[in-house]
Amino acid sequence: MPFHLYFNGEISPLDSTIFKSNDLAILRGYGMFDYFRTYNGVPFRWDDYWQRFENSAKLLKLPLPLNQEEAAEILADLHALSGEPEVAFRFVLTGGYAPDSVHVVKPNFLIRTEALPQDNPAGLLKGIKVLPYQYVRDLPEIKTTNYVHMVLMADEMKEQGASDLLFYKDGEISELTRSNFFIFKGDTLITSDTNILRGITRKVVLELAKEHFKIEVRPLLYSELATADEAFTTSSTKWVMPIVQIGDNLVGDGKAGQRTLSLQDLFKKVVLEWGR
Amino acid sequence: MPFHLYFNGEISPLDSTIFKSNDLAILRGYGMFDYFRTYNGVPFRWDDYWQRFENSAKLLKLPLPLNQEEAAEILADLHALSGEPEVAFRFVLTGGYAPDSVHVVKPNFLIRTEALPQDNPAGLLKGIKVLPYQYVRDLPEIKTTNYVHMVLMADEMKEQGASDLLFYKDGEISELTRSNFFIFKGDTLITSDTNILRGITRKVVLELAKEHFKIEVRPLLYSELATADEAFTTSSTKWVMPIVQIGDNLVGDGKAGQRTLSLQDLFKKVVLEWGR
Repeated sequence: MPFHLYFNGEISPLDSTIFKSNDLAILRGYGMFDYFRTYNGVPFRWDDYWQRFENSAKLLKLPLPLNQEEAAEILADLHALSGEPEVAFRFVLTGGYAPDSVHVVKPNFLIRTEALPQDNPAGLLKGIKVLPYQYVRDLPEIKTTNYVHMVLMADEMKEQGASDLLFYKDGEISELTRSNFFIFKGDTLITSDTNILRGITRKVVLELAKEHFKIEVRPLLYSELATADEAFTTSSTKWVMPIVQIGDNLVGDGKAGQRTLSLQDLFKKVVLEWGR
Repeated sequence: MPFHLYFNGEISPLDSTIFKSNDLAILRGYGMFDYFRTYNGVPFRWDDYWQRFENSAKLLKLPLPLNQEEAAEILADLHALSGEPEVAFRFVLTGGYAPDSVHVVKPNFLIRTEALPQDNPAGLLKGIKVLPYQYVRDLPEIKTTNYVHMVLMADEMKEQGASDLLFYKDGEISELTRSNFFIFKGDTLITSDTNILRGITRKVVLELAKEHFKIEVRPLLYSELATADEAFTTSSTKWVMPIVQIGDNLVGDGKAGQRTLSLQDLFKKVVLEWGR
Protein backbone atom coordinates (compact mmCIF):
# COMPACT_ATOMS: atom_id res chain seq x y z
CA MET A 1 0.00 0.00 0.00
CA PRO A 2 2.00 3.01 -1.15
CA PHE A 3 -0.13 5.51 0.76
CA HIS A 4 1.30 9.00 0.91
CA LEU A 5 0.75 12.19 2.81
CA TYR A 6 0.85 15.86 1.98
CA PHE A 7 2.54 18.20 4.46
CA ASN A 8 2.97 21.93 3.86
CA GLY A 9 3.46 21.61 0.12
CA GLU A 10 5.38 18.33 -0.04
CA ILE A 11 4.17 14.80 -0.72
CA SER A 12 5.96 11.94 1.01
CA PRO A 13 5.27 8.34 2.11
CA LEU A 14 2.65 7.99 4.82
CA ASP A 15 5.16 6.72 7.36
CA SER A 16 7.44 9.77 7.01
CA THR A 17 8.82 11.65 9.99
CA ILE A 18 7.53 15.19 9.43
CA PHE A 19 6.71 17.08 12.62
CA LYS A 20 9.11 19.02 14.78
CA SER A 21 8.46 18.74 18.49
CA ASN A 22 7.11 22.23 19.15
CA ASP A 23 3.97 21.95 17.08
CA LEU A 24 1.04 23.32 19.09
CA ALA A 25 -0.92 20.10 18.45
CA ILE A 26 1.78 18.24 20.37
CA LEU A 27 2.48 20.84 23.06
CA ARG A 28 -1.02 22.31 23.52
CA GLY A 29 -3.54 20.04 21.84
CA TYR A 30 -4.25 22.87 19.40
CA GLY A 31 -5.38 21.16 16.24
CA MET A 32 -8.42 20.18 14.20
CA PHE A 33 -9.14 17.68 11.51
CA ASP A 34 -11.66 16.16 9.18
CA TYR A 35 -12.07 12.74 7.69
CA PHE A 36 -13.92 11.45 4.65
CA ARG A 37 -13.66 8.81 1.96
CA THR A 38 -14.31 8.04 -1.67
CA TYR A 39 -17.09 5.97 -3.17
CA ASN A 40 -16.61 4.87 -6.75
CA GLY A 41 -13.36 6.77 -6.61
CA VAL A 42 -15.02 10.12 -5.88
CA PRO A 43 -14.72 11.90 -2.50
CA PHE A 44 -18.15 11.71 -0.85
CA ARG A 45 -19.89 15.05 -0.26
CA TRP A 46 -16.58 16.87 -0.67
CA ASP A 47 -18.21 20.30 -0.60
CA ASP A 48 -19.79 19.57 2.75
CA TYR A 49 -16.59 18.23 4.30
CA TRP A 50 -14.53 21.13 3.00
CA GLN A 51 -17.07 23.61 4.32
CA ARG A 52 -16.96 22.01 7.77
CA PHE A 53 -13.18 21.97 7.72
CA GLU A 54 -13.14 25.67 6.79
CA ASN A 55 -15.58 26.40 9.60
CA SER A 56 -13.48 24.55 12.20
CA ALA A 57 -10.41 26.48 11.04
CA LYS A 58 -12.23 29.79 11.31
CA LEU A 59 -13.46 29.02 14.83
CA LEU A 60 -9.93 28.04 15.91
CA LYS A 61 -8.61 31.22 14.21
CA LEU A 62 -6.26 29.21 12.01
CA PRO A 63 -5.75 30.56 8.47
CA LEU A 64 -6.12 27.84 5.83
CA PRO A 65 -3.06 27.68 3.57
CA LEU A 66 -5.06 26.23 0.63
CA ASN A 67 -8.39 26.84 -1.02
CA GLN A 68 -10.82 24.07 -1.94
CA GLU A 69 -9.59 23.70 -5.52
CA GLU A 70 -5.96 23.41 -4.49
CA ALA A 71 -6.91 20.84 -1.87
CA ALA A 72 -8.90 18.87 -4.46
CA GLU A 73 -5.83 18.63 -6.70
CA ILE A 74 -3.78 17.24 -3.83
CA LEU A 75 -6.50 14.69 -3.06
CA ALA A 76 -6.37 13.55 -6.70
CA ASP A 77 -2.57 13.23 -6.58
CA LEU A 78 -2.63 11.29 -3.30
CA HIS A 79 -5.40 9.05 -4.57
CA ALA A 80 -3.48 8.27 -7.76
CA LEU A 81 -0.30 7.47 -5.79
CA SER A 82 -2.18 5.02 -3.59
CA GLY A 83 -3.07 2.75 -6.49
CA GLU A 84 -6.28 1.90 -4.63
CA PRO A 85 -9.77 2.27 -6.09
CA GLU A 86 -11.06 3.73 -2.80
CA VAL A 87 -9.25 5.64 -0.06
CA ALA A 88 -9.98 7.65 3.06
CA PHE A 89 -8.52 11.11 3.60
CA ARG A 90 -7.64 12.72 6.90
CA PHE A 91 -7.07 16.47 6.97
CA VAL A 92 -5.22 17.81 10.02
CA LEU A 93 -4.59 21.50 10.64
CA THR A 94 -2.46 22.30 13.68
CA GLY A 95 -1.38 25.50 15.40
CA GLY A 96 2.07 24.98 13.85
CA TYR A 97 5.50 25.48 15.35
CA ALA A 98 5.46 27.87 18.28
CA PRO A 99 8.76 29.39 19.44
CA ASP A 100 7.07 30.45 22.70
CA SER A 101 4.93 27.28 22.97
CA VAL A 102 1.76 29.41 23.12
CA HIS A 103 1.13 31.64 20.10
CA VAL A 104 0.15 30.52 16.61
CA VAL A 105 2.62 31.71 13.98
CA LYS A 106 1.84 29.55 10.95
CA PRO A 107 -0.36 26.44 10.94
CA ASN A 108 0.88 23.08 9.71
CA PHE A 109 -1.41 21.41 7.18
CA LEU A 110 -1.36 17.65 6.78
CA ILE A 111 -3.42 15.40 4.50
CA ARG A 112 -3.08 11.68 5.13
CA THR A 113 -4.29 9.04 2.70
CA GLU A 114 -5.49 6.05 4.67
CA ALA A 115 -6.84 2.58 3.97
CA LEU A 116 -10.62 2.40 4.16
CA PRO A 117 -11.90 1.84 7.68
CA GLN A 118 -12.83 -1.71 8.57
CA ASP A 119 -16.46 -2.51 7.99
CA ASN A 120 -18.58 -3.84 10.82
CA PRO A 121 -21.18 -5.87 8.87
CA ALA A 122 -22.41 -7.64 12.00
CA GLY A 123 -22.94 -4.29 13.70
CA LEU A 124 -24.85 -2.89 10.73
CA LEU A 125 -27.13 -5.92 10.80
CA LYS A 126 -27.55 -6.63 14.50
CA GLY A 127 -26.64 -3.34 16.12
CA ILE A 128 -24.04 -2.34 18.70
CA LYS A 129 -23.82 -1.70 22.43
CA VAL A 130 -22.64 1.67 23.72
CA LEU A 131 -21.77 2.92 27.21
CA PRO A 132 -23.43 6.02 28.64
CA TYR A 133 -20.73 8.51 29.67
CA GLN A 134 -21.20 11.82 31.48
CA TYR A 135 -19.37 14.30 29.33
CA VAL A 136 -19.96 16.99 26.79
CA ARG A 137 -17.31 17.75 24.20
CA ASP A 138 -15.47 21.01 24.66
CA LEU A 139 -16.10 23.40 21.74
CA PRO A 140 -18.40 20.74 20.23
CA GLU A 141 -19.04 22.56 16.97
CA ILE A 142 -15.33 22.41 16.11
CA LYS A 143 -13.80 19.13 14.97
CA THR A 144 -10.82 19.56 17.27
CA THR A 145 -8.36 16.74 17.81
CA ASN A 146 -9.44 16.38 21.45
CA TYR A 147 -10.59 12.77 21.79
CA VAL A 148 -8.93 12.06 25.11
CA HIS A 149 -11.95 10.37 26.69
CA MET A 150 -12.38 8.02 23.74
CA VAL A 151 -8.75 6.87 23.92
CA LEU A 152 -8.83 6.73 27.72
CA MET A 153 -11.95 4.51 27.74
CA ALA A 154 -10.88 2.17 24.91
CA ASP A 155 -10.00 -0.74 27.21
CA GLU A 156 -13.12 -0.31 29.35
CA MET A 157 -15.31 -0.39 26.24
CA LYS A 158 -13.65 -3.57 25.06
CA GLU A 159 -14.11 -5.22 28.46
CA GLN A 160 -17.80 -4.36 28.45
CA GLY A 161 -18.33 -5.47 24.85
CA ALA A 162 -19.23 -1.94 23.84
CA SER A 163 -18.31 -0.15 20.62
CA ASP A 164 -18.56 3.44 21.70
CA LEU A 165 -19.51 6.00 24.36
CA LEU A 166 -22.79 7.92 24.42
CA PHE A 167 -22.08 11.39 25.80
CA TYR A 168 -24.69 13.03 28.02
CA LYS A 169 -24.57 15.81 30.57
CA ASP A 170 -27.14 17.58 32.73
CA GLY A 171 -29.78 15.17 31.46
CA GLU A 172 -29.17 15.90 27.77
CA ILE A 173 -27.66 13.57 25.21
CA SER A 174 -25.30 15.17 22.71
CA GLU A 175 -23.47 12.60 20.56
CA LEU A 176 -21.11 9.62 20.56
CA THR A 177 -17.33 10.02 20.56
CA ARG A 178 -17.18 10.44 16.77
CA SER A 179 -20.74 10.14 15.54
CA ASN A 180 -24.24 11.58 15.92
CA PHE A 181 -27.16 10.02 17.73
CA PHE A 182 -30.80 9.49 16.77
CA ILE A 183 -33.81 7.77 18.28
CA PHE A 184 -37.16 6.74 16.85
CA LYS A 185 -40.34 7.05 18.86
CA GLY A 186 -42.86 5.40 16.59
CA ASP A 187 -42.46 7.11 13.22
CA THR A 188 -40.86 10.20 14.73
CA LEU A 189 -37.11 10.56 14.28
CA ILE A 190 -35.39 12.69 16.95
CA THR A 191 -31.83 14.00 17.03
CA SER A 192 -30.09 16.68 19.04
CA ASP A 193 -28.97 20.00 17.62
CA THR A 194 -26.97 21.28 20.60
CA ASN A 195 -23.42 20.51 21.75
CA ILE A 196 -22.82 18.37 18.68
CA LEU A 197 -20.52 18.26 15.74
CA ARG A 198 -22.75 18.53 12.69
CA GLY A 199 -22.00 15.28 10.91
CA ILE A 200 -22.16 15.05 7.12
CA THR A 201 -23.70 11.58 7.37
CA ARG A 202 -26.23 13.05 9.83
CA LYS A 203 -27.07 15.68 7.23
CA VAL A 204 -27.54 13.11 4.47
CA VAL A 205 -29.67 10.88 6.71
CA LEU A 206 -31.91 13.83 7.66
CA GLU A 207 -32.31 14.61 3.94
CA LEU A 208 -33.29 10.99 3.26
CA ALA A 209 -35.53 10.63 6.30
CA LYS A 210 -37.72 13.66 5.73
CA GLU A 211 -39.69 11.93 3.02
CA HIS A 212 -40.54 9.01 5.27
CA PHE A 213 -40.70 10.15 8.86
CA LYS A 214 -41.66 13.04 11.09
CA ILE A 215 -38.43 14.71 12.21
CA GLU A 216 -37.67 16.56 15.44
CA VAL A 217 -34.28 18.27 15.66
CA ARG A 218 -34.12 19.41 19.27
CA PRO A 219 -32.44 18.75 22.62
CA LEU A 220 -32.73 15.05 23.38
CA LEU A 221 -33.18 14.05 27.01
CA TYR A 222 -31.45 11.07 28.51
CA SER A 223 -34.77 10.10 30.10
CA GLU A 224 -36.28 9.67 26.63
CA LEU A 225 -34.13 6.60 26.03
CA ALA A 226 -36.50 4.54 28.18
CA THR A 227 -39.35 5.04 25.71
CA ALA A 228 -37.32 4.99 22.48
CA ASP A 229 -38.33 2.27 20.03
CA GLU A 230 -35.09 2.39 18.08
CA ALA A 231 -31.74 4.16 18.25
CA PHE A 232 -28.84 4.54 15.87
CA THR A 233 -25.68 6.49 15.22
CA THR A 234 -24.33 8.01 12.02
CA SER A 235 -20.84 8.73 10.79
CA SER A 236 -18.77 8.43 7.64
CA THR A 237 -17.40 5.10 8.85
CA LYS A 238 -20.50 3.76 10.66
CA TRP A 239 -23.10 4.78 8.05
CA VAL A 240 -26.42 4.17 9.87
CA MET A 241 -25.48 1.87 12.72
CA PRO A 242 -28.27 0.51 14.93
CA ILE A 243 -27.73 0.86 18.69
CA VAL A 244 -29.47 -1.94 20.55
CA GLN A 245 -28.04 -1.59 24.04
CA ILE A 246 -27.01 1.42 26.14
CA GLY A 247 -25.14 0.31 29.23
CA ASP A 248 -27.30 -2.40 30.81
CA ASN A 249 -30.50 -1.30 29.09
CA LEU A 250 -31.85 -2.62 25.80
CA VAL A 251 -33.21 -0.11 23.31
CA GLY A 252 -36.79 -1.12 22.44
CA ASP A 253 -36.81 -4.88 22.05
CA GLY A 254 -33.00 -5.03 21.82
CA LYS A 255 -32.96 -5.74 18.10
CA ALA A 256 -31.93 -3.50 15.22
CA GLY A 257 -35.02 -1.44 14.37
CA GLN A 258 -36.84 -1.74 11.06
CA ARG A 259 -37.02 2.02 10.50
CA THR A 260 -33.30 2.26 11.24
CA LEU A 261 -32.53 -0.50 8.77
CA SER A 262 -34.67 1.22 6.14
CA LEU A 263 -32.60 4.40 6.56
CA GLN A 264 -29.44 2.31 6.38
CA ASP A 265 -30.68 0.92 3.05
CA LEU A 266 -31.40 4.39 1.72
CA PHE A 267 -27.96 5.60 2.78
CA LYS A 268 -26.29 2.57 1.24
CA LYS A 269 -27.99 3.33 -2.10
CA VAL A 270 -26.67 6.89 -1.99
CA VAL A 271 -23.08 5.85 -1.45
CA LEU A 272 -23.18 2.92 -3.89
CA GLU A 273 -24.38 5.30 -6.60
CA TRP A 274 -22.11 8.17 -5.56
CA GLY A 275 -20.20 9.67 -8.49
CA ARG A 276 -21.86 7.48 -11.13
CA MET B 1 21.98 28.02 21.81
CA PRO B 2 22.75 24.36 21.16
CA PHE B 3 19.64 23.10 22.93
CA HIS B 4 18.87 19.46 22.35
CA LEU B 5 15.99 17.08 22.84
CA TYR B 6 15.65 13.47 23.84
CA PHE B 7 13.18 11.33 21.93
CA ASN B 8 12.70 7.61 22.57
CA GLY B 9 16.33 6.95 23.41
CA GLU B 10 18.05 9.36 21.02
CA ILE B 11 19.38 12.85 21.59
CA SER B 12 19.21 15.33 18.71
CA PRO B 13 19.13 19.11 18.15
CA LEU B 14 16.00 20.83 19.48
CA ASP B 15 14.81 21.78 16.01
CA SER B 16 14.87 18.18 14.72
CA THR B 17 12.00 16.66 12.81
CA ILE B 18 11.05 13.66 14.93
CA PHE B 19 7.32 12.84 14.93
CA LYS B 20 5.47 10.77 12.39
CA SER B 21 2.00 12.04 11.58
CA ASN B 22 -0.05 9.36 13.32
CA ASP B 23 1.00 10.12 16.85
CA LEU B 24 -2.08 10.20 19.09
CA ALA B 25 -1.09 13.65 20.39
CA ILE B 26 -1.48 14.97 16.85
CA LEU B 27 -4.52 12.92 15.79
CA ARG B 28 -6.41 12.72 19.10
CA GLY B 29 -4.93 15.23 21.51
CA TYR B 30 -3.76 12.31 23.66
CA GLY B 31 -0.70 13.57 25.46
CA MET B 32 0.57 14.95 28.74
CA PHE B 33 3.57 16.93 29.84
CA ASP B 34 5.41 18.60 32.63
CA TYR B 35 7.70 21.57 32.81
CA PHE B 36 10.32 22.68 35.31
CA ARG B 37 13.63 24.48 35.47
CA THR B 38 16.98 24.61 37.21
CA TYR B 39 18.18 27.05 39.84
CA ASN B 40 21.91 27.16 40.44
CA GLY B 41 22.11 24.41 37.85
CA VAL B 42 19.95 21.99 39.83
CA PRO B 43 16.43 20.97 38.72
CA PHE B 44 14.00 22.55 41.18
CA ARG B 45 11.92 20.12 43.27
CA TRP B 46 12.73 17.33 40.82
CA ASP B 47 11.11 14.66 43.02
CA ASP B 48 7.83 16.57 43.07
CA TYR B 49 7.79 17.15 39.33
CA TRP B 50 8.66 13.55 38.55
CA GLN B 51 5.96 12.31 40.91
CA ARG B 52 3.37 14.52 39.22
CA PHE B 53 4.52 13.36 35.80
CA GLU B 54 4.21 9.73 36.91
CA ASN B 55 0.75 10.42 38.27
CA SER B 56 -0.44 12.03 35.00
CA ALA B 57 0.92 9.05 33.05
CA LYS B 58 -0.88 6.61 35.33
CA LEU B 59 -4.18 8.46 35.00
CA LEU B 60 -3.84 8.51 31.20
CA LYS B 61 -2.90 4.80 31.31
CA LEU B 62 0.41 5.47 29.55
CA PRO B 63 3.34 3.28 30.66
CA LEU B 64 6.47 5.35 31.36
CA PRO B 65 9.46 4.07 29.39
CA LEU B 66 11.97 5.39 31.95
CA ASN B 67 12.33 5.49 35.69
CA GLN B 68 13.31 8.60 37.63
CA GLU B 69 17.02 7.78 37.73
CA GLU B 70 17.23 7.18 34.00
CA ALA B 71 15.37 10.42 33.35
CA ALA B 72 17.75 12.29 35.67
CA GLU B 73 20.73 11.08 33.64
CA ILE B 74 19.15 12.38 30.45
CA LEU B 75 18.48 15.73 32.09
CA ALA B 76 22.15 15.97 33.05
CA ASP B 77 23.25 15.14 29.48
CA LEU B 78 20.85 17.65 27.93
CA HIS B 79 21.88 20.30 30.41
CA ALA B 80 25.56 19.74 29.66
CA LEU B 81 24.94 19.93 25.89
CA SER B 82 23.15 23.25 26.27
CA GLY B 83 26.23 25.00 27.62
CA GLU B 84 23.86 27.17 29.68
CA PRO B 85 24.06 27.58 33.45
CA GLU B 86 20.27 27.37 33.75
CA VAL B 87 17.73 25.61 31.53
CA ALA B 88 14.06 24.66 31.49
CA PHE B 89 12.94 21.11 30.73
CA ARG B 90 9.71 20.07 29.08
CA PHE B 91 8.65 16.42 29.34
CA VAL B 92 6.02 15.27 26.86
CA LEU B 93 4.50 11.80 26.85
CA THR B 94 2.11 11.05 23.99
CA GLY B 95 -0.14 8.13 23.06
CA GLY B 96 2.44 7.21 20.41
CA TYR B 97 1.93 6.00 16.87
CA ALA B 98 -1.50 4.45 16.35
CA PRO B 99 -2.05 2.28 13.26
CA ASP B 100 -5.81 2.53 13.84
CA SER B 101 -5.70 6.19 15.00
CA VAL B 102 -7.41 5.21 18.27
CA HIS B 103 -5.54 2.69 20.42
CA VAL B 104 -2.32 3.27 22.34
CA VAL B 105 0.42 0.84 21.31
CA LYS B 106 3.60 2.43 22.66
CA PRO B 107 3.94 5.99 23.99
CA ASN B 108 6.44 8.44 22.58
CA PHE B 109 8.58 10.15 25.21
CA LEU B 110 10.12 13.54 24.51
CA ILE B 111 12.28 15.76 26.70
CA ARG B 112 12.95 19.23 25.37
CA THR B 113 15.62 21.54 26.76
CA GLU B 114 14.40 25.11 26.49
CA ALA B 115 15.68 28.58 27.21
CA LEU B 116 14.50 29.96 30.52
CA PRO B 117 11.10 31.64 30.31
CA GLN B 118 11.14 35.41 30.07
CA ASP B 119 10.83 37.14 33.38
CA ASN B 120 8.06 39.63 33.99
CA PRO B 121 9.70 41.88 36.61
CA ALA B 122 7.05 44.58 36.20
CA GLY B 123 4.32 41.99 36.79
CA LEU B 124 6.04 40.65 39.89
CA LEU B 125 6.25 44.19 41.28
CA LYS B 126 2.98 45.76 40.18
CA GLY B 127 0.77 42.78 39.48
CA ILE B 128 -1.13 41.62 36.40
CA LYS B 129 -4.64 41.76 34.99
CA VAL B 130 -6.51 38.55 34.18
CA LEU B 131 -9.80 37.89 32.40
CA PRO B 132 -12.53 35.83 34.05
CA TYR B 133 -13.44 32.90 31.77
CA GLN B 134 -16.24 30.38 32.27
CA TYR B 135 -14.52 27.06 31.93
CA VAL B 136 -13.22 24.19 33.95
CA ARG B 137 -10.34 22.11 32.66
CA ASP B 138 -11.22 18.63 31.53
CA LEU B 139 -9.48 15.98 33.68
CA PRO B 140 -7.96 18.82 35.73
CA GLU B 141 -5.74 16.63 37.90
CA ILE B 142 -3.85 15.44 34.82
CA LYS B 143 -1.37 17.75 33.14
CA THR B 144 -2.72 16.94 29.67
CA THR B 145 -1.63 18.92 26.64
CA ASN B 146 -5.14 20.36 26.24
CA TYR B 147 -4.66 24.14 26.36
CA VAL B 148 -6.99 24.99 23.50
CA HIS B 149 -8.77 27.84 25.30
CA MET B 150 -5.51 29.51 26.25
CA VAL B 151 -4.25 29.51 22.66
CA LEU B 152 -7.67 30.50 21.30
CA MET B 153 -7.92 33.50 23.64
CA ALA B 154 -4.32 34.72 23.20
CA ASP B 155 -5.28 37.66 20.92
CA GLU B 156 -8.24 38.66 23.07
CA MET B 157 -6.03 38.74 26.16
CA LYS B 158 -3.50 40.93 24.40
CA GLU B 159 -6.21 43.34 23.24
CA GLN B 160 -7.52 43.67 26.77
CA GLY B 161 -4.07 44.08 28.30
CA ALA B 162 -4.50 40.86 30.26
CA SER B 163 -1.87 38.25 30.99
CA ASP B 164 -4.03 35.22 31.60
CA LEU B 165 -7.50 33.71 32.06
CA LEU B 166 -9.08 32.95 35.42
CA PHE B 167 -11.21 29.82 35.04
CA TYR B 168 -14.49 29.59 36.96
CA LYS B 169 -17.61 27.52 36.51
CA ASP B 170 -20.86 27.14 38.44
CA GLY B 171 -19.73 29.90 40.77
CA GLU B 172 -16.43 28.24 41.71
CA ILE B 173 -12.95 29.38 40.79
CA SER B 174 -10.49 26.64 39.88
CA GLU B 175 -7.24 28.00 38.46
CA LEU B 176 -5.64 30.02 35.67
CA THR B 177 -4.66 28.49 32.34
CA ARG B 178 -1.31 27.25 33.66
CA SER B 179 -1.14 28.35 37.26
CA ASN B 180 -2.92 28.18 40.60
CA PHE B 181 -4.93 30.91 42.26
CA PHE B 182 -4.95 32.31 45.79
CA ILE B 183 -6.66 35.15 47.61
CA PHE B 184 -6.03 36.84 50.93
CA LYS B 185 -8.87 37.96 53.15
CA GLY B 186 -7.02 39.77 55.91
CA ASP B 187 -4.38 37.34 57.13
CA THR B 188 -6.23 34.30 55.80
CA LEU B 189 -4.85 32.73 52.65
CA ILE B 190 -7.43 30.80 50.60
CA THR B 191 -6.87 28.52 47.63
CA SER B 192 -9.00 25.93 45.90
CA ASP B 193 -8.42 22.20 46.11
CA THR B 194 -10.94 21.04 43.48
CA ASN B 195 -10.72 20.89 39.70
CA ILE B 196 -7.11 22.04 39.78
CA LEU B 197 -3.73 20.79 38.75
CA ARG B 198 -1.70 20.58 41.93
CA GLY B 199 1.13 22.97 41.21
CA ILE B 200 4.57 22.42 42.67
CA THR B 201 4.98 26.16 43.23
CA ARG B 202 1.56 26.10 44.94
CA LYS B 203 2.87 23.37 47.23
CA VAL B 204 6.04 25.31 48.08
CA VAL B 205 4.06 28.51 48.72
CA LEU B 206 1.67 26.67 51.04
CA GLU B 207 4.69 25.29 52.93
CA LEU B 208 6.12 28.79 53.26
CA ALA B 209 2.81 30.48 54.12
CA LYS B 210 1.78 28.22 56.96
CA GLU B 211 4.21 29.83 59.37
CA HIS B 212 2.82 33.31 58.70
CA PHE B 213 -0.86 33.05 57.79
CA LYS B 214 -4.04 31.14 58.48
CA ILE B 215 -4.62 28.85 55.51
CA GLU B 216 -7.90 27.60 54.05
CA VAL B 217 -7.65 25.02 51.28
CA ARG B 218 -11.23 24.68 50.06
CA PRO B 219 -13.58 25.51 47.18
CA LEU B 220 -13.22 29.20 46.38
CA LEU B 221 -16.34 31.04 45.24
CA TYR B 222 -16.27 33.59 42.47
CA SER B 223 -18.39 35.85 44.68
CA GLU B 224 -15.55 35.97 47.23
CA LEU B 225 -13.44 38.02 44.83
CA ALA B 226 -15.44 41.12 45.75
CA THR B 227 -14.18 41.01 49.33
CA ALA B 228 -10.65 39.74 48.66
CA ASP B 229 -7.88 42.04 49.87
CA GLU B 230 -5.22 40.50 47.66
CA ALA B 231 -4.93 37.87 44.95
CA PHE B 232 -2.04 36.11 43.28
CA THR B 233 -1.15 33.20 41.08
CA THR B 234 1.68 30.68 41.34
CA SER B 235 3.59 28.67 38.77
CA SER B 236 7.12 27.62 37.96
CA THR B 237 7.44 30.56 35.56
CA LYS B 238 5.32 33.15 37.44
CA TRP B 239 6.60 32.42 40.96
CA VAL B 240 4.21 34.40 43.18
CA MET B 241 2.59 36.88 40.79
CA PRO B 242 0.19 39.48 42.21
CA ILE B 243 -3.17 39.79 40.44
CA VAL B 244 -4.48 43.32 40.74
CA GLN B 245 -7.36 43.31 38.26
CA ILE B 246 -9.89 40.64 37.22
CA GLY B 247 -11.80 41.77 34.15
CA ASP B 248 -13.02 45.29 34.95
CA ASN B 249 -12.72 44.87 38.70
CA LEU B 250 -9.75 45.80 40.84
CA VAL B 251 -8.65 43.38 43.52
CA GLY B 252 -8.59 45.22 46.85
CA ASP B 253 -7.07 48.64 46.20
CA GLY B 254 -5.73 47.56 42.81
CA LYS B 255 -2.12 47.39 43.97
CA ALA B 256 0.11 44.39 44.56
CA GLY B 257 -0.65 43.24 48.10
CA GLN B 258 1.92 43.37 50.91
CA ARG B 259 1.21 39.83 52.06
CA THR B 260 1.55 38.60 48.50
CA LEU B 261 4.86 40.40 48.10
CA SER B 262 6.10 38.90 51.36
CA LEU B 263 5.35 35.39 50.01
CA GLN B 264 7.07 36.32 46.78
CA ASP B 265 10.16 37.27 48.80
CA LEU B 266 10.08 34.00 50.69
CA PHE B 267 9.75 32.03 47.45
CA LYS B 268 12.55 33.99 45.83
CA LYS B 269 14.84 33.11 48.73
CA VAL B 270 14.06 29.42 48.29
CA VAL B 271 14.92 29.39 44.60
CA LEU B 272 18.00 31.58 44.96
CA GLU B 273 19.36 29.17 47.52
CA TRP B 274 18.22 26.03 45.71
CA GLY B 275 20.97 23.43 45.35
CA ARG B 276 23.52 25.38 47.32
